[in-house]
Amino acid sequence: MNYLDLSKDELAKERARVLKEYEKLKALKLNLNMARGKPSIEQLNLSRGLLDVINSESCCTLKDGTDCLNYGVLDGIPEIKELFAPVLGVAPNQIFVGGNSSLSMMFDIISFFMTRGVPGFEPWTRQGKIKFLCPCPGYDRHFAILEHFNIEAIPVPMTITGPDMGIVENLVAKDRTIKGIFCVPKYSNPQGITYSDETVKRFSALPHLAGDFRIFWDNAYAIHDLSDTPARLLNIMDECEKNGTQDLPLIFCSTSKITFPGAGVAFLGASKKNLSAIKNFYSAKTIGFDKINQLRHVRYFKDYRGLLSHMKKHQDILKPKFDLVTNALKSEFSGNKIISFTDPTGGYFISVDVMPGCAKRVVALCKNIGLILTDAGATFPYGIDKKDSNIRLAPSCPTLDELNVAIYAFCVAVKLATLEKLLES
Amino acid sequence: MNYLDLSKDELAKERARVLKEYEKLKALKLNLNMARGKPSIEQLNLSRGLLDVINSESCCTLKDGTDCLNYGVLDGIPEIKELFAPVLGVAPNQIFVGGNSSLSMMFDIISFFMTRGVPGFEPWTRQGKIKFLCPCPGYDRHFAILEHFNIEAIPVPMTITGPDMGIVENLVAKDRTIKGIFCVPKYSNPQGITYSDETVKRFSALPHLAGDFRIFWDNAYAIHDLSDTPARLLNIMDECEKNGTQDLPLIFCSTSKITFPGAGVAFLGASKKNLSAIKNFYSAKTIGFDKINQLRHVRYFKDYRGLLSHMKKHQDILKPKFDLVTNALKSEFSGNKIISFTDPTGGYFISVDVMPGCAKRVVALCKNIGLILTDAGATFPYGIDKKDSNIRLAPSCPTLDELNVAIYAFCVAVKLATLEKLLES
Repeated sequence: MNYLDLSKDELAKERARVLKEYEKLKALKLNLNMARGKPSIEQLNLSRGLLDVINSESCCTLKDGTDCLNYGVLDGIPEIKELFAPVLGVAPNQIFVGGNSSLSMMFDIISFFMTRGVPGFEPWTRQGKIKFLCPCPGYDRHFAILEHFNIEAIPVPMTITGPDMGIVENLVAKDRTIKGIFCVPKYSNPQGITYSDETVKRFSALPHLAGDFRIFWDNAYAIHDLSDTPARLLNIMDECEKNGTQDLPLIFCSTSKITFPGAGVAFLGASKKNLSAIKNFYSAKTIGFDKINQLRHVRYFKDYRGLLSHMKKHQDILKPKFDLVTNALKSEFSGNKIISFTDPTGGYFISVDVMPGCAKRVVALCKNIGLILTDAGATFPYGIDKKDSNIRLAPSCPTLDELNVAIYAFCVAVKLATLEKLLES
Repeated sequence: MNYLDLSKDELAKERARVLKEYEKLKALKLNLNMARGKPSIEQLNLSRGLLDVINSESCCTLKDGTDCLNYGVLDGIPEIKELFAPVLGVAPNQIFVGGNSSLSMMFDIISFFMTRGVPGFEPWTRQGKIKFLCPCPGYDRHFAILEHFNIEAIPVPMTITGPDMGIVENLVAKDRTIKGIFCVPKYSNPQGITYSDETVKRFSALPHLAGDFRIFWDNAYAIHDLSDTPARLLNIMDECEKNGTQDLPLIFCSTSKITFPGAGVAFLGASKKNLSAIKNFYSAKTIGFDKINQLRHVRYFKDYRGLLSHMKKHQDILKPKFDLVTNALKSEFSGNKIISFTDPTGGYFISVDVMPGCAKRVVALCKNIGLILTDAGATFPYGIDKKDSNIRLAPSCPTLDELNVAIYAFCVAVKLATLEKLLES
């Protein structure tokens, strides 16, 4: 049944039917959450061995003589740079290892650039109003950083090959106040889109007017595949080096969704020039980050192959959940053209577009029956989705049984909201 | 022998004698370091049990249901707030638990105030040139934060009861651009001075013109006693609450010198108003800090008594080192009034004042024979000790045998530099 083909009477009848389903769900007093990209307990258990590799008997002295139990080493231990170099796609000596959060590093670096400036340029705070580009839908916590610093966020539409590069190029070529762009280039949050080779190449040759423009390349899902034929992201640093634009990208990743969220390790990959400035800024902020935890990660994974085989275990847990959700959406909306959604081969999210004007209502209807979703609008700067259409689903945390109920409840809410909308017009 | 009573001839003769001692030391090709307040390997070993209390079999779920292995809890787990409340001298609900570094939290909070302002006030960046007071000699990393943010550091002389409060009161009462002061109120860095009750009371009633003035109360050595009759620091929050000035202090401490430097936990104690604003700022920067490491500390120490008995073990290791240094200084300079030094009952440093114009030369002479000291001047903002007199000694890291040689070498260097100075005048 395609709601778009129904008469008002048919719509009203269908609404009555769906409302009954909704009331039944309400009676179940559900307590379900698909709001955040949280790993499940099963996934967390994959990394419990990390808690054994260093104990009171362990030698924590590195090859270079560093005692990981004591002060020192601002930019991270060499062993973990080696391990994560292939994840970041840069050489080990192009890596700064931070604390437990890549988000926090992005915040810090923007703070450094605001206060002290990109190396060779005036601090951003002394340049008047500045702006960042935000491919949308995107990650709410990127937008929150910009709001904190009062940096204007300019939405740029996403396409299936990444941000609309025509728009990006046009804007940064003309406007000196645009200082950066937030990208999640692989399995983007929330759509799961991987930037095409052409998109990466165009980023590496971006005709930017502001010399202190930087690409915040948040490769959060670099090795977070849901398929045995994973998406392949072109190495942006390689491309930039070909073009002499190696100072453009700042590449981030972390182990938040590899080992333990909040108790992992975050990384920055950057050109020598950027790295040296950032290291200098960090030297005013801290003596160093948690080297014991860095060493734990090295001893647990041993090498890149160990890391990838660990990620395969995450995939085995996550794939059935994503399949369940996308299959339910396909089957519930078969022929009913009131919804579109992504079917990603990696990452943590499924992005759903409902009929314009319905997203907020869907999220509210879900909340009312005990299913928490990401707030409608959260995938856009300032929480404003002009179409009120995009909803982000995070299937990782609930069990398969819970997901079964949650996605059914979601579909009922989408139908109800859409019927209401169609009836009011 | 008091050098100040000697004739030029006698001085020259003594210099020849001391130079020989110096040359002998040089021949030993020493490799000693008294520069930083680093715990020794023996001290680090005290905390190795911390690495066993959580392993792959551990339940990491808290009483309130929080899974420490997953995302969540921005401001720290309740259990560690409870444990460290008596260290900070505030209620558990007045605590924000940060990452591994209290220095980093001070940096963050100044960054927040620069960008967004103290709650209820304009951001500091929009108020033109601003200033901080810096009791001197003081901690070089405090000064580095101010330099990073281009905040002018105004030196305030230390007395044996803390900063000269007459000067502090006079300055902050008149100057709206003075926004803060850095204090190490117990066993101050580098002098080991504990602020008197009167000093704390005067801080709690500070007649500050700037409503957004804050006291950065870096209580780094809160429980780091070297004596069984430790210094007692009046609780600043209690005093402030009596005066209705509870928004003035921001109280910091960390476990860097309790467990593992760099792999510990940092804390902020503050009024509800300050805490709520700071928590809000941090929510733009991170999802949360390392809860597993917080839980480790809780399970290892169990309670405040456990923490104090652990600190007693540090004391047992540190006290002989401090005694060795102060005894050597006393004996080497008995009757020779060319030096004064502190004999602290806690903390990590001994502060030495040599004859004006000699500190840089002493540090250089030491370096030349393989003994690294904190740079002369480091204890003053911008590295400028106008008198060129203060030197900070950090006796914690070397072994007793090493210290024996190091302090002898230091004394020889002090004598040589002083003789040079006396001979040139």
